[in-house]
Amino acid sequence: MAKPKRLKSKGSSRQKAKSAKSHSRAKHAVTKHAARKQELQYIPWHTIPLEDLNPLLQRQFVVGQEIMLARVLLKKGCIVPEHRHHNEQVTYVLDGALKFWIDGKEIVIHSGEVLCIPPNMPHKAEALEDTVDLDVFNPPRADWISRNDQYLRGQK
Amino acid sequence: MAKPKRLKSKGSSRQKAKSAKSHSRAKHAVTKHAARKQELQYIPWHTIPLEDLNPLLQRQFVVGQEIMLARVLLKKGCIVPEHRHHNEQVTYVLDGALKFWIDGKEIVIHSGEVLCIPPNMPHKAEALEDTVDLDVFNPPRADWISRNDQYLRGQK
Repeated sequence: MAKPKRLKSKGSSRQKAKSAKSHSRAKHAVTKHAARKQELQYIPWHTIPLEDLNPLLQRQFVVGQEIMLARVLLKKGCIVPEHRHHNEQVTYVLDGALKFWIDGKEIVIHSGEVLCIPPNMPHKAEALEDTVDLDVFNPPRADWISRNDQYLRGQK
Repeated sequence: MAKPKRLKSKGSSRQKAKSAKSHSRAKHAVTKHAARKQELQYIPWHTIPLEDLNPLLQRQFVVGQEIMLARVLLKKGCIVPEHRHHNEQVTYVLDGALKFWIDGKEIVIHSGEVLCIPPNMPHKAEALEDTVDLDVFNPPRADWISRNDQYLRGQK
């Protein structure tokens, strides 16, 4: 299986300067991840291992600069407990159906439907069928990147 | 055909204050769109008309606060001329194949593959097959929202 390609940028000198600044910050601050955010990335999904969060929930994601794109696989009956985050979320159900408890309402998102969740809005979800879900976040979920996401790992 | 639902937020008082501030700014500044960005939105794709940009290119999109999610349909042979934008772009080909000229390279993105394009990186693309493509942008593309996107409309 091929590895995701982190393609070195041949951008403008302005971009390079920006990138260099970012790399310098990353040295003092955070992760290898941060150091590659400014680069062009070509990533087939099949090169990213599916992470088992619990027996009903798997996940993989790619992280750009300010965008995280996640592919989330939920088996029927999987419950994502109520939680909230400062990251804006756009959920697009590619296959299956997710029921959300959000903003005092119950909303079922079927295949071909989108839910835009503003920052800090608490939400809970349940897979009504086996579901393939795309989640877009801005900024990227630091708790997912660091695997500090115990709320997803508790289900038996 | 049902209309997309813009669901009024019942968020926290902090959210309401933030939202109210945003609404107030919007009054003086921009668009009806800006005024609804902070709200929960439930949007089946089929409720958004497909926009014909040229005979080979159709598009629909949803806009959140800082995320735009676009569904782009390209017929085989469709060419997106070289362009650049300050918006970060994550492209996920759901079906078909897109050839990119980017960063001095040619890269073909097949179904199930992702390309993360940093801000301001020039790129051109050609559909090698009939293609369904998801594009995520941060921030949302103001030129697409205002239809000031003549570069996409020139193809015969």
